[in-house]
Amino acid sequence: MILHGYYRSSASYRVRIALNLKGLPVSHVSHHLRKGEQRAADYLPLNPQGLVPTLVADDGRALTQSLAIVEWLDETYPQPPLLPADPWERARVRAFAQAIACDIHPLQNLRILTKVKAMTGSDDDSQAWARFVNEDGLAACEAMLANEPGPFCFGTRPTLADICLVPQLVNARRFNADVARFPRLLAIEVAANALPAFADAAPAKQPDAE
Amino acid sequence: MILHGYYRSSASYRVRIALNLKGLPVSHVSHHLRKGEQRAADYLPLNPQGLVPTLVADDGRALTQSLAIVEWLDETYPQPPLLPADPWERARVRAFAQAIACDIHPLQNLRILTKVKAMTGSDDDSQAWARFVNEDGLAACEAMLANEPGPFCFGTRPTLADICLVPQLVNARRFNADVARFPRLLAIEVAANALPAFADAAPAKQPDAE
Repeated sequence: MILHGYYRSSASYRVRIALNLKGLPVSHVSHHLRKGEQRAADYLPLNPQGLVPTLVADDGRALTQSLAIVEWLDETYPQPPLLPADPWERARVRAFAQAIACDIHPLQNLRILTKVKAMTGSDDDSQAWARFVNEDGLAACEAMLANEPGPFCFGTRPTLADICLVPQLVNARRFNADVARFPRLLAIEVAANALPAFADAAPAKQPDAE
Repeated sequence: MILHGYYRSSASYRVRIALNLKGLPVSHVSHHLRKGEQRAADYLPLNPQGLVPTLVADDGRALTQSLAIVEWLDETYPQPPLLPADPWERARVRAFAQAIACDIHPLQNLRILTKVKAMTGSDDDSQAWARFVNEDGLAACEAMLANEPGPFCFGTRPTLADICLVPQLVNARRFNADVARFPRLLAIEVAANALPAFADAAPAKQPDAE
């Protein structure tokens, strides 16, 4: 399999964690986002949105959207499971993942920050926006886990929820969000990063890291 | 079951379609978004994000995030299925749904438009932003379906993909997006709205419509 991604893309980071948890080997192709390589003419047929990640299977078929990719990996390579078996618990994990993947991450990615800067003429505004989105969204995430025992988001094993949370915390710090407000999320991050599957997927450890 | 929503919330609209397709009765509780009722103190315990929709099951447990709710409904009430049986095809449907639910809808909801207006001081800017996000995102959606035979997004039955597409097209028109650029999406919309499950879920048909 080939993963088209970028070291600092948190959506790519999610897929890297999932691949590591499943123990699946993959070749990496890096698309430099600030240079716009994700919108290159030879890449758009694989990913019409012009985004990373894209996973290309051994038969050449391409799959987009990080959560869809992770669920496909989970259905195709079931061990270890990345979602609970119980439908209600699965739904809670998905809801937490989507609270990040729908309501935090897309609002603070490069495409949007560039647009905010263009509208306001200010780099400060785009940074303040990103900080606000992260703090507001992570506060909700902290509340969503108020009755969970840990050490991971939902119980004693990492799930899709942790796969989304850990990369988002890296983003949050990059935008100087006050993550100390979220002790529960930070404790989960420590538990997750103690696993090589998470630690090895970190942006700084990728070959395309700058 | 109780669905906390709002007639014009496209995420609520998705859940209404799914409930109709499954033939499940539900009570509706409306939260007026412009009045901020989704952030009321007695609602936040159900939905810490302060968003709609929330589905409350008969045992009182609450579930958030529209895609997670729809997948829970699909796993709990399997007929008719809202996702294909094949894992790869399921993933493609999820990816299309997420292209809307992650990369279009959150960028043009009320919370963000209010923020854009506050930053730029211009209502025109927030409307132009919403139009741009819809046109850019729907162009990718049109491309993602380039090789699909129809009449629905993926084949002969409505799926989670159609459940996301139809409400997004309503939003797109509200922001004066040029939807005529997307003939494939419009043809799917016609096929979907020929089904009562879709037509009856439309914002204008809800009791809280203004």
